[in-house]
Amino acid sequence: MNYIQSYYPPEDSTCFGCGYSNPQGLHVKSYWQDGEAVCRYTPGPEQTAYGRVVVYGGLLACLIDCHSVATAIAAAYAAEGRDIASLPRIAYVTGSLNVTYQAPTPLGPELALRAWVQEALPKKSLVVCELSAGGKVTVRGETMAVRAKWAA
Amino acid sequence: MNYIQSYYPPEDSTCFGCGYSNPQGLHVKSYWQDGEAVCRYTPGPEQTAYGRVVVYGGLLACLIDCHSVATAIAAAYAAEGRDIASLPRIAYVTGSLNVTYQAPTPLGPELALRAWVQEALPKKSLVVCELSAGGKVTVRGETMAVRAKWAA
Repeated sequence: MNYIQSYYPPEDSTCFGCGYSNPQGLHVKSYWQDGEAVCRYTPGPEQTAYGRVVVYGGLLACLIDCHSVATAIAAAYAAEGRDIASLPRIAYVTGSLNVTYQAPTPLGPELALRAWVQEALPKKSLVVCELSAGGKVTVRGETMAVRAKWAA
Repeated sequence: MNYIQSYYPPEDSTCFGCGYSNPQGLHVKSYWQDGEAVCRYTPGPEQTAYGRVVVYGGLLACLIDCHSVATAIAAAYAAEGRDIASLPRIAYVTGSLNVTYQAPTPLGPELALRAWVQEALPKKSLVVCELSAGGKVTVRGETMAVRAKWAA
């Protein structure tokens, strides 16, 4: 299976965070495996907070946002026993995004994100995401992903 | 008074969201007036979510993050009856960022942010931020800004 966002239809592929057709975007790529989704991302030197040694917290929120919504989508297909390429397609949008910065995230190493659906309701899914650098979790996210009505 | 971030010292001016010395950054500018801070920002066409009509939610989280931390800083100077340019300087970092997307934010209009300190404790401040487009509040943020020890 390719990355989750690669299955988004062209009209939803413009997202600055994860759209494959946004040339200036972050191109977040999430992969579904064993009931959760994983993502790797290496920030560039410009994506810094203070002092050029810590990653900008807003970027980390962006990564968690796009990765968590992709997780909700992939999990919904899995829960229905459907292939992610099958129709009708399933889409989610971000209802709320709660990010806790537990420690500074060092700028330099590749970052790893894991996310899973903590609670699935018919119209929304609570997705928990852990972001780590060098094996240490530095940021935790809780995203309420809302199922998009137009694609239900 | 100039914008709040213009008073940050050079070593803290690299932030991708609001640092004046990050040429690739967003350059969020917050102004203190009448007990709250205001900011205006017009997203570019690449900062879209789906369909090129809605602003990317991760960008909105970035704007709220930087604007809210600046609000905490300016409010702390004001609470101490000090000019923002006075020493020792006051710095805050983001402890947590909670963003609720109440409605899609249309891509095109200038966005307006208002933020104020809801609760001030010695070591942290809870900052509430409302982001609006065309006069309608579309996003609400609650940021726990933590006073940075190295600058206390």
